[in-house]
Amino acid sequence: MFQSLKRLIIGRPIATADEGHQRLPKKVALPVFASDAISSTAYATDEILHVLLIGAGIGYAAFTRLVPLSIVVAVLLVIVVTSYRQTIHAYPNGGGSYIVSKENLGTVPSLVAGSSLLVDYILTVAVSVAGGVLAIRSAFGFDSKWTVPICLLCVLLMTLANLRGLKESGSLFAPPTYLYVGSLIVLIIVGLVRVFVFDNIEPIDPETVSEEAVELAKGASSLGLMMLLRAFSSGAVALSGVEAVSNGVPAFKKPESKNAATTIVIMATILGTCFLGISILASHLKPIRGEDDPTGIALMAQQVYDGKNVMFWIMQISTFAILILAANTAYADFPRLSSIIAKDGFLPRQFSNRGDRLVFSNGVIFLAVVASVLIWAFDGQISALIPLYAFGVFTGFTLSQSGMVIHHLRLREPRWKLSLAINAIGAFTTGLIAVIVVVSKFTQGAWIPAFLIPIMVTIFYSIGKHYHRVKKSLVVPPGYKAQRHTHYVVVLVGKVNRGVIDAIGYARSLAPERIIALSVVQDPEEERHLHEQWDEYDIPIELHTVSSPYRELTRPVFAFLDEIDQERDDDIITVVIPESVTKVQSQWLHNQSALALKARLLYRPHTVVVSVPVHVD
Amino acid sequence: MFQSLKRLIIGRPIATADEGHQRLPKKVALPVFASDAISSTAYATDEILHVLLIGAGIGYAAFTRLVPLSIVVAVLLVIVVTSYRQTIHAYPNGGGSYIVSKENLGTVPSLVAGSSLLVDYILTVAVSVAGGVLAIRSAFGFDSKWTVPICLLCVLLMTLANLRGLKESGSLFAPPTYLYVGSLIVLIIVGLVRVFVFDNIEPIDPETVSEEAVELAKGASSLGLMMLLRAFSSGAVALSGVEAVSNGVPAFKKPESKNAATTIVIMATILGTCFLGISILASHLKPIRGEDDPTGIALMAQQVYDGKNVMFWIMQISTFAILILAANTAYADFPRLSSIIAKDGFLPRQFSNRGDRLVFSNGVIFLAVVASVLIWAFDGQISALIPLYAFGVFTGFTLSQSGMVIHHLRLREPRWKLSLAINAIGAFTTGLIAVIVVVSKFTQGAWIPAFLIPIMVTIFYSIGKHYHRVKKSLVVPPGYKAQRHTHYVVVLVGKVNRGVIDAIGYARSLAPERIIALSVVQDPEEERHLHEQWDEYDIPIELHTVSSPYRELTRPVFAFLDEIDQERDDDIITVVIPESVTKVQSQWLHNQSALALKARLLYRPHTVVVSVPVHVD
Repeated sequence: MFQSLKRLIIGRPIATADEGHQRLPKKVALPVFASDAISSTAYATDEILHVLLIGAGIGYAAFTRLVPLSIVVAVLLVIVVTSYRQTIHAYPNGGGSYIVSKENLGTVPSLVAGSSLLVDYILTVAVSVAGGVLAIRSAFGFDSKWTVPICLLCVLLMTLANLRGLKESGSLFAPPTYLYVGSLIVLIIVGLVRVFVFDNIEPIDPETVSEEAVELAKGASSLGLMMLLRAFSSGAVALSGVEAVSNGVPAFKKPESKNAATTIVIMATILGTCFLGISILASHLKPIRGEDDPTGIALMAQQVYDGKNVMFWIMQISTFAILILAANTAYADFPRLSSIIAKDGFLPRQFSNRGDRLVFSNGVIFLAVVASVLIWAFDGQISALIPLYAFGVFTGFTLSQSGMVIHHLRLREPRWKLSLAINAIGAFTTGLIAVIVVVSKFTQGAWIPAFLIPIMVTIFYSIGKHYHRVKKSLVVPPGYKAQRHTHYVVVLVGKVNRGVIDAIGYARSLAPERIIALSVVQDPEEERHLHEQWDEYDIPIELHTVSSPYRELTRPVFAFLDEIDQERDDDIITVVIPESVTKVQSQWLHNQSALALKARLLYRPHTVVVSVPVHVD
Repeated sequence: MFQSLKRLIIGRPIATADEGHQRLPKKVALPVFASDAISSTAYATDEILHVLLIGAGIGYAAFTRLVPLSIVVAVLLVIVVTSYRQTIHAYPNGGGSYIVSKENLGTVPSLVAGSSLLVDYILTVAVSVAGGVLAIRSAFGFDSKWTVPICLLCVLLMTLANLRGLKESGSLFAPPTYLYVGSLIVLIIVGLVRVFVFDNIEPIDPETVSEEAVELAKGASSLGLMMLLRAFSSGAVALSGVEAVSNGVPAFKKPESKNAATTIVIMATILGTCFLGISILASHLKPIRGEDDPTGIALMAQQVYDGKNVMFWIMQISTFAILILAANTAYADFPRLSSIIAKDGFLPRQFSNRGDRLVFSNGVIFLAVVASVLIWAFDGQISALIPLYAFGVFTGFTLSQSGMVIHHLRLREPRWKLSLAINAIGAFTTGLIAVIVVVSKFTQGAWIPAFLIPIMVTIFYSIGKHYHRVKKSLVVPPGYKAQRHTHYVVVLVGKVNRGVIDAIGYARSLAPERIIALSVVQDPEEERHLHEQWDEYDIPIELHTVSSPYRELTRPVFAFLDEIDQERDDDIITVVIPESVTKVQSQWLHNQSALALKARLLYRPHTVVVSVPVHVD
């Protein structure tokens, strides 16, 4: 039943050999890998204004700072994308920060890059879903107590879609991206035409928004450097997701590098244009919003289109759609990256297993669970999640670009000096911004990734050391042959029943050198009764009883096994445990003590545990 | 480390043979078994008034109904206790409702009685702890948001105390009972003397309590029959805990029955006197309280002692203490009853295992967890929990007394007609009250036990049937001998390493008729490599590979085992799985697929699984 339900939801299994067919053409790859970056236009401008209005309290002066700040972010985007085009060509098999750092900088930097990216993918899901739900809340105006449940429902649906597989996700989610980009460009053009050509549109009146907005409009503080940097750090999250394309090169149709490089430029053009356009429009329409108000885009769309008409609705619904798509970028990348790290032995092996739809199912599920917890813990508030976000993004950028610098120095391919210069500028700029983010936003939450990433690196590193040690200790020495040891069988007995007799029969068939039945009894009465039964059923092996005044099982059994071990030191002891096996739903009523004992015996040297099942149903 | 922490908190183990010493003298047994019943004086009067004031809204008229209602409850107490004295003498080995019903009425009624009591013990913990915390909140006046956390802390501390063992609990908790009873009697006497002798005390002014109290005082509705019955049902919870003594007879010092019978009379006298006394005092002092106000006793103590002086503090703190003690009654009885039911095979066997301090630890922990959930779910509100409570109490009483009626009819001991009459009156009265409770409080929450108890009975019954079937199927038929089967060993192999070679060595030592190594491979490349390794290390058994295009493990292994089974039908297949064993903290990085496979193999007939541990650390 579980199996057929799974088939219904997830689809039929896909064979390993079918992997090649799961490649994406450019027009499908763009929404899959670029929606994260493009979607940040839906909240990045609001987040800059959030710092200037709510954080710094500078009122209408915020709008004179908005465009200059946005231009700096756009320049940054050009630098980063130019840098990443180098990476895409140098690493046609996928050149995420992790791989580039690993090849050029070494293990620890690569783990820093890897954990930064994993953290960011999780935050992408949390922030994008929260942003998407805020977009529809701006339209429908439902109560804010529904925010978190709706977010969690979105995460669940996306998880199911992604467990079905990557290609279907792409074609399922492609149309909304184009709709969003289209609506946003229409909004910007119509808005700017009304401002500059017809001059028939007013700035938004805070009175029509909320009391909080009216208060914020009155703000008249002066803007300190720290607040300016904080506002810039918030805007810089618009760049998150830019690395997704370079990470996913092998998922493109051939020629992979060329297609990916084209895609990243298309993406950057769309992203930069829309982000600047929205900021310019906002600097004229002045959308002031409090924590619980509709988004800036919703307010502006209402103003530009003179109310909540069909254009407004298309804008809001497509915003919701692209943000869900953005989360989907992380669903494509998180499992892929964690599988690469797992194959390198720094994450548990389960992350490198593909499910029966060729998806790295464990990564998908892990991502969904952690993102849901974050949404729940931060109450679905984007502004609270943003400071956690930017630090990881720029740490990843910095390591990736630094790795490229070393790469050019090592290989000295044609025109390497130009490439070196591009990546050096990229590394320096993004490194600087990582520092700005962590300093300016430390107390707002940037401390969380700043502590978490080193901890993750430590864990990954020790997992890596562990797997390495295990592998080394399992190497077969030359000429190694398994030895024949003395072979002692101990059958554990509670009371005499059919199962015990079967188990003893089985144990005798193992051709042991010695065999004994062991029973732990609690009182002399029980002991006497057991010996009587033994004689009655004429059981052909010796019965040894040990008493356990404190009603324990494990300790007396271990004491007895130690005694046996002392007699000779080349023993292998096989402990035979008869276990009642019933239907799955009643199995919990049996063998709880046996389970605990087996777990302990596993750690005992030279001891093998045999469970002889006794089927009773 | 875990072991020494456990020893520190729980104490050293106690041997089974020391059980006899854990008997209680009367003066210790009274607080242990009677604190539940006596402690209900702390809230029963308030609960009657809660229905009359908040439910019915009859204002000051409530106080004219209070004493008559209390007298009815007191008469009921006399009937029930007289009835239970018969039980104590008839069942010196412990005559709780469960045992009496089992012997006289049959399995299903006994399970009804058992589950009613288990539900009640859980509610005793929840209600008493909530009441205790309310008593100290009445004194200290802390914010109501701390109520639930403080309640949960109390449950935790009590759980630890009880895991240490029963006798220590008794001596630890005895003094507060006597202090509470003492303070309560002093309060009643001083109060009544001031009312009747000196006539120098006024009723409590609702203005000094809260706005809600002022509102309630204005109530002028008339009292319908349903509300009267509801008020009575609330008062009747004062009787909960009366059965504890008869359930716990074997824990008394010898002569058990005589001591227990004396104790139940002392208990009833104290309970009846205090309950009536408080109600009479309240009918004069008229303590009107809203949901969030101090308790009636706190208000009256403040009035009688002219403010919050030392007498007031002693009253409140000892109220807290006795209510915690009351919860402790349940800690003594719940594990004991669940162990009896488990020994009869209607609950999982784990409930009948004594921990190393001779306590039924699993019962203690289960009780603590469920009571904590209830406190959390009902926000620590006594009035919300009360309707859940009374139905179970009176169902238990009814079954117990009905059982006694049958008992007398069966045995016809000396003076059986008088005893029969006493128990028949008891059964009839308590049965009637169970009906009154469930009818009058159905929508207030009495529906919960009314549905839950039948569900519990069904579960208990099916557990019982299951254990019975298992036992029957394990009976050794006359002349049964285990047969010798064909003995086929399959060694599961991933890649070749030291562990696999050891496992093959072990498997060969089992003297199988046939032996084969089985490997599930995902692609031809992997298959070829494995066969190369096989030749290279010169491994002396045949290697069979099966391919798994959908990256599964379980299905191909089962298919192969089915093939073997088809060849001959007297096979026992032993599947040998080499498992890497590392330190406990890194074990989760290994063998996850092996675990899933082992769980499935357990259910396969004629199959034995052998885990050969490969120690790598």
